[in-house]
Amino acid sequence: MISRVLSAELAEHAGQRVTIAGWVHRRRRLKSVSFLIVRDRSGLTQAVAASGDLPPEESVVQVTGTVATGSQAPGGYELVSPEIEVLAQPSAPPPFDLYRPVVSAALPTVLDHAPVALRHPMLRAPLEISAASVAGFREALDRLGFTEIHTPKIVGSATESGANVFGIDYFGRPAYLAQSPQFYKQAMVGVFERVYEVGPVFRAEPHDTVRHLAQYTSLDAELGFVRDHRDVMAVLREAVAGMLESVRRRAPGALDLLGVMLPEVPAEIPAVHFSEAQRLTSSSEPDLSPEQERWLSEWALKEHGSEFLFVTGYPMAKRPFYTHPDPARPGYSNGFDLLFRGLELVTGGQRLHRYDDYVRALAARGEGTQAYEGYLQAFRYGMPPHGGFALGLERWTARLTGAANIRQTTAFPRDLHRLSP
Amino acid sequence: MISRVLSAELAEHAGQRVTIAGWVHRRRRLKSVSFLIVRDRSGLTQAVAASGDLPPEESVVQVTGTVATGSQAPGGYELVSPEIEVLAQPSAPPPFDLYRPVVSAALPTVLDHAPVALRHPMLRAPLEISAASVAGFREALDRLGFTEIHTPKIVGSATESGANVFGIDYFGRPAYLAQSPQFYKQAMVGVFERVYEVGPVFRAEPHDTVRHLAQYTSLDAELGFVRDHRDVMAVLREAVAGMLESVRRRAPGALDLLGVMLPEVPAEIPAVHFSEAQRLTSSSEPDLSPEQERWLSEWALKEHGSEFLFVTGYPMAKRPFYTHPDPARPGYSNGFDLLFRGLELVTGGQRLHRYDDYVRALAARGEGTQAYEGYLQAFRYGMPPHGGFALGLERWTARLTGAANIRQTTAFPRDLHRLSP
Repeated sequence: MISRVLSAELAEHAGQRVTIAGWVHRRRRLKSVSFLIVRDRSGLTQAVAASGDLPPEESVVQVTGTVATGSQAPGGYELVSPEIEVLAQPSAPPPFDLYRPVVSAALPTVLDHAPVALRHPMLRAPLEISAASVAGFREALDRLGFTEIHTPKIVGSATESGANVFGIDYFGRPAYLAQSPQFYKQAMVGVFERVYEVGPVFRAEPHDTVRHLAQYTSLDAELGFVRDHRDVMAVLREAVAGMLESVRRRAPGALDLLGVMLPEVPAEIPAVHFSEAQRLTSSSEPDLSPEQERWLSEWALKEHGSEFLFVTGYPMAKRPFYTHPDPARPGYSNGFDLLFRGLELVTGGQRLHRYDDYVRALAARGEGTQAYEGYLQAFRYGMPPHGGFALGLERWTARLTGAANIRQTTAFPRDLHRLSP
Repeated sequence: MISRVLSAELAEHAGQRVTIAGWVHRRRRLKSVSFLIVRDRSGLTQAVAASGDLPPEESVVQVTGTVATGSQAPGGYELVSPEIEVLAQPSAPPPFDLYRPVVSAALPTVLDHAPVALRHPMLRAPLEISAASVAGFREALDRLGFTEIHTPKIVGSATESGANVFGIDYFGRPAYLAQSPQFYKQAMVGVFERVYEVGPVFRAEPHDTVRHLAQYTSLDAELGFVRDHRDVMAVLREAVAGMLESVRRRAPGALDLLGVMLPEVPAEIPAVHFSEAQRLTSSSEPDLSPEQERWLSEWALKEHGSEFLFVTGYPMAKRPFYTHPDPARPGYSNGFDLLFRGLELVTGGQRLHRYDDYVRALAARGEGTQAYEGYLQAFRYGMPPHGGFALGLERWTARLTGAANIRQTTAFPRDLHRLSP
């Protein structure tokens, strides 16, 4: 490896001659002195040179110098008497200045130039928060005895929702990109009892909005031997707390840079039944509107001091066929949503677990079992009461960072119009 | 949660009355006594009952009983005076007996019934080893300052290899399933310096063999500021050692059950140059045959006591266009393969990092830059010397466990003929 210290380690080498390596973030020539700011994965380092030519921005350089205190330097230390070696020269200047505190280019321009735009610390930060979140999700579930699975992204039938699926040519046969690992994670409860998967899911979403992507990363979990959906909610609470703890620990720089205040997760997240949510918002619709979700979030913050709120018991008619009904309240389900800062963040619930219940549920929706044979196998051979949830990583990151557009939370977004880079 | 102890915790509760929960693995009625073996995610528990009717195999049950020593019981403890509650009844007997030590059904039958077949401890074990391997991969790279990324699985052009891609209908436009995250992970070296991704890749592999899948899980890493490919090999060594350490720690039961002996990873894995490999195997072909790979693996074990062997310097003609040449030996590359137990397990190497070199490399293969515009952006704006590798998770698990067919190492394989379950 190129022998180097990272920008963040500079203070540990005060007075020593060290080598740093990275990209020229900015160069500034004054009358008698020049400054070269070098960006590496840990931060910025300022090198102070005699006036003269300096390599242009985004050059890849190695700079050997003596570590000295510098009151104007990032972190309080800088390199003096630098020797600069250029490892790679850019063949063009960047499409916009990466050294400015904020990128002023319009989002489409930024996205068209993602490989270089994401080098900007502000644009990179959401991805750091995203990576830290996923690590925390896994850690929390690993502690609870979950096993990681990898399931097919190519499926033979478009059964789960029917709409918005991408068709693929599978060796001359029609096939589809999976919209979720729902059926597979349920089947794997029969094998491991508790499973999770972090992977891409695909929605041929025909709407061009700030909240929809054609591919996103779904954080899925499913667990058996639950009493009802409340056990699933308790596990989700642990997962979310683990994600936030991990972000706090792994991405403090990104949080600072974006000015993000992380929410507290109450030991028990407040929950309101759907019928009560309707009463509170004076509604009789069978689903909650975005406006109602915002209102309920504000209410939870006022009433319970919580930025998170569970809404439980959504009407069966609005939930997928595998949803477990509430045994005590006909028409209502053991399904829930988790609202966070005004928006639905997670959908989950208890599922049916008896084969006969599946046959009945499908018949009630006018469907036979044929398209579901592989899925129904799990239930034919004995399945425990179980449930689970799915959390969209990009939506999570957008809510945490306050990103106005979900495209700012993933490196190379895919949407109705965008297929590159 | 259903209040229960796991089979593996039984010894800690000797003399107490406890509840276990799981599937009826087997029932046996003798003249005056019956045995009920219950399977949960941690193992098996035997309950000893008075003779009488017992729920059939794969019923989901809760059994409350007193923990007593039992010389015939798995783990040395069993439940006596059991009360059995059935949580879910199977609606059919399993397609083959899950309680037998080995599954005798043919592989296609097993795969057709994956949701129930994978409950067999022998068939589940490779998936436990696979999950533990991935956790170890991430741990090792996290320690080395890598950042996890998620990249598009839908791409606009079939550029990387051209052949064996799945076509998809992307909102009426042609698109393709990504064969690897190669271009994206390289671009992200410009952002995070060190990145990895664990995700599905897709190959429209027209051959029906024991080694090919249409979807597999690729463990990809890429890092910048390397001197050459040897720095990449050193990181790969750490990743492999981390994977094995994690399997040892997280999946000891699966290793026992399958009788797997884990390999030792030498502090430095032996390496042989391609030209030397040719000399050793008396060959002049520009690539290694499977037979040569086997021979070289045996040679490494004999000569170096290592089950791992790097072959370095593959001819440029046999490597992709982004491969960095060996500056000292024209025609040879800074690419490598890692052989493990007779088979290529990992491909990697140093990549080109200068924009002009890419333009030249593409021209030399008779290609323009147009189809690569998004990719080449990263290099246009300054990229450090870098390299990386890709390891196929299923192939790794197959080599570790000695699985005869790669389909035994993934829950729901996809191949030329198989699209369900």
